Formats: sequence, structure tokens, C-alpha cells
Amino acid sequence: MDAAALNAFLAREFAPVAKELTVLEADLTGLRLALEVGPQHLRPGGTVSGPSLFGLADIAVYLAILSRIGPRALAVTVNCSIDFMRKPAAGVGLVAHAKLLKLGRVLAVGDVLIYAQGLGAPVARASMTYSLPQGE
Amino acid sequence: MDAAALNAFLAREFAPVAKELTVLEADLTGLRLALEVGPQHLRPGGTVSGPSLFGLADIAVYLAILSRIGPRALAVTVNCSIDFMRKPAAGVGLVAHAKLLKLGRVLAVGDVLIYAQGLGAPVARASMTYSLPQGE
Amino acid sequence: MDAAALNAFLAREFAPVAKELTVLEADLTGLRLALEVGPQHLRPGGTVSGPSLFGLADIAVYLAILSRIGPRALAVTVNCSIDFMRKPAAGVGLVAHAKLLKLGRVLAVGDVLIYAQGLGAPVARASMTYSLPQGE
Amino acid sequence: MDAAALNAFLAREFAPVAKELTVLEADLTGLRLALEVGPQHLRPGGTVSGPSLFGLADIAVYLAILSRIGPRALAVTVNCSIDFMRKPAAGVGLVAHAKLLKLGRVLAVGDVLIYAQGLGAPVARASMTYSLPQGE
Repeated sequence: MDAAALNAFLAREFAPVAKELTVLEADLTGLRLALEVGPQHLRPGGTVSGPSLFGLADIAVYLAILSRIGPRALAVTVNCSIDFMRKPAAGVGLVAHAKLLKLGRVLAVGDVLIYAQGLGAPVARASMTYSLPQGE
Repeated sequence: MDAAALNAFLAREFAPVAKELTVLEADLTGLRLALEVGPQHLRPGGTVSGPSLFGLADIAVYLAILSRIGPRALAVTVNCSIDFMRKPAAGVGLVAHAKLLKLGRVLAVGDVLIYAQGLGAPVARASMTYSLPQGE
Repeated sequence: MDAAALNAFLAREFAPVAKELTVLEADLTGLRLALEVGPQHLRPGGTVSGPSLFGLADIAVYLAILSRIGPRALAVTVNCSIDFMRKPAAGVGLVAHAKLLKLGRVLAVGDVLIYAQGLGAPVARASMTYSLPQGE
Repeated sequence: MDAAALNAFLAREFAPVAKELTVLEADLTGLRLALEVGPQHLRPGGTVSGPSLFGLADIAVYLAILSRIGPRALAVTVNCSIDFMRKPAAGVGLVAHAKLLKLGRVLAVGDVLIYAQGLGAPVARASMTYSLPQGE
């Protein structure tokens, strides 16, 4: 699935969040997913909340897997480690850069860096392990 | 701060989510935080979303720190690792059991198990590292 | 497998490290594994090295899995997150307390706290995910 | 510190393991550290042990930090998450590619991919958080 197919998949299956997410690019080297930050993503103090950054990383790896195996059955997150390194400002868009490091028969592992517009260094880093549905 | 003081703090500082969260118990051995699961916490398929579980674990450790140091300045999450082990059903409340394993001068480390009502084994496990504000 | 069977397994399969490791207790609630700390476990400065603590946690969860499924085929570590919280002194024994949080068909998840003799608070915390060999 | 200075530092401060480790390259974009795999790194079954991969990642990030701040006081690992993705063969050298994602006043975060000679995809991925000694 390429960027257009993934955006159509988001609109169909993840309607509540599809409006704020856009796949910018998806190929064998990785996937870039943009988040338009709104008030629902902020925490007290005006910075982007941890769950919003976690959710962005999670869905970026999920889409990177689908871009390789197609919109089959549901892959399930089994593990995540995430480092919050800098505070993104409130009014600024975010882009997650995801790479698949492993796409095995049972498990997939992806790595994500999240960047904020206008900031050279990443605001967060995450790695996610997905359990892949076993074929029937 | 005891459970009542923490619930008042939640209502004051985290108004958008305070309605769904209740500190059940907070003492030196740990803290229990209940989440009333609503439609906003679900993902396609009807299970509780990863970001909702992450957010519950995160705030449980945050409150466990505040119960020890008081409502001073903001502690900041710097790292989280989380394992998703079982799928909680849609209509069922969750309770996070958080323990502080370390409360140092610079860093605090907490451990969380999340249970679903009516399920003996935990649905998720998380550990969080917080950076503590340095005194002025 | 109980503690005696696990110690015999260690002596047979992990000869190089079996001398320094002793399973103290193994039942459905968890497993306790003692490490006799020697010069090979220290790093410059005289504290126990990170790889030694990692290895202790790893083998404790591995043995906890074997205590439940028997000495079948090899389970393989796929993920670990570990927090180093306090520095154990050089001449002091360590004990890992491991608990299995999940023993599924494909994955097992265990949680470990490592204690040093004479210190009430844990020196390290780890969680490990193992991939289980699929039956033939 | 450049690669030559870091190799001299290893020989002086980490004598027991310095013989098997070589900094191949160190600059602002990252550091590459080679491990000559010997019998002491193997586990039953003939693959490189988890503690050996952990130790390689740990020291690679440590040296990446020193390359930027110089051989001052000791930085201490506070957290690691590591994914073991493929089994490196026994007789094959490993190279860790480390990047510093953050070098703050209190914490540093590094990311590592470990490659085995002759294998295009990484065998392991790790991220490490270090606590930096506070100046006097």
C-alpha cells in the first residue's frame, strides 16, 4: 500500500483520528506520518501530551507494517519503549519517521523518531513490537 | 497528599480527564487509580486503545510521585516501557496499581500493573521514569 | 520444574555460569535466583556491571518459564527494558525476584526486581519478553 | 575525543574488554564500535549472548557521550530498552552504530543498531539513557 492507499485506509477504519493524520510518504525505506496538533493533544502547560506522542508513534509503525503486508487482519502492539526528549511547542505540527527493522512471521519491530516543525532534533523516540496475526 | 487531596488536585489541574479518573488509595506502599472506560478510550474492534492505557499508567505514576513530594512543580516523563498483554473488554473499568521503586533527587522510577474488572491477570505492565524539577 | 530440577538444568546446560547461580525458590508465584558476585561481574569503580545485571534478570525469567513449561525447546529473548536504580556494592550477593505476568502460546512476559543483600530497595528492575518455540 | 583518543581511553580504563573492542569512527553524526566475537560471548546453541549484545550497545553509547564531553567523570546508565531481532552467527564480528539523540545537562539518550558481518538487517536495536554527572 502506498501513501494514498494508507490515507484511504485511515479515513475508512480510523475515522475519529483520520482528519488529523496524513501519510506523507511510504516506501520500503520507511514511512512519514504528519499529525496536525490541536487542543485535544495538549496537556496542562501547553505542550503535546505523552499519550498523543505515543499514539502517533504507534499508528506510524502500524501503517508501516500495512504498507508491506496489506490491509489484512489486525496486527497488535505488544510492547513499546519511548523516550521523551524535548517539549514540542503547542501550535506546531509533528511528523513521525518510522522504519521497520524486522518483519518476521510472528513479530514486527519498528523504530520511530518524532520531529516538530522548525526543530532540528527529535522530540521523541519510540520502538514498537507488533504481534502479527497468524495466517489461516 | 492522600487520595482525597490527589483527587482534588486532578479536578483542579486536569479538568478534561478528572471526571473519568479516581484515586482509590495512596500511601507509602503505592497508589491505585481507577479509569472509567468510555467510547473515547476505545479503538476499532472495541478494545481499550494503547494511548489510553499509556495515559493511565503515566498519570498513576505522576500522582504517586506527588503523593510523596506534594504538588510542587511539574515532574516530566522522560521514558516509558509498556507491555500490552491482554485485551481489556470494552465495557469494563480499569485500575492501575502503581509503585514507586525510586524517588531520587533527579529521577523517579515507578512500576504499574493495569487490571480490568473481573480479570485476575493484568492487561498491561508499564514502567515510567520521571525527571524531577531541580530546586531553585 | 522445582528449584532442585532447575539447578540441575543450569549445571547441565549453562555450565560456565552455573557455579555462580542458585535457584532459591520456584513456584507458581515466582522464582528467586541468587548470584554470587565475583570480579568478573564488576566494572571500573567497583560496582556490578550492567551486562551482569541484565544477564541475571534474563536467566531468572528464562528459568521461570521453564519451571512452568518444562525443559523443552529454547525460548528466546526478544525484548528487554531495564532500569538501573541504585549501585550495588562490590562484595555483596544479589537476588533476582522474577514473576511471569503472561505465559501465552507465542509470547511470555516476565518482571524482575533485583535486590542486593542488606539493601531494602531494589537495585534494578527489568521486564523481558520471550518468544516461545512453536510446537511441532 | 576522536576514534584514536577513545581507543586509548578504552585500553586505559577498560583493560579487560579493550582487546575485543575497536572504535572505527567517531564524529558528530555518530560512532561505530566493532566487537571481535570470542567464545566468552556465546551462549548454548552457539549464538552471541544477550548480555554481550547489551554490553556492546551500552559501551557504544557511553563512548559516543565521551566523544562529545571528553573523559570527565563517569556517566551512568539509568535505562535501556533492547530488541533482539536476529541471531548473529558464532564466528562473525559485530559492529554497533550509535547515535546521540539528546545530550542534555542531566540526561543523554542514545540509539544503537547492531549489525553482524555479512547480514544486511540489524541483529539488535537498543536505546540507552545515561545520567550525566553534575558539575562541581
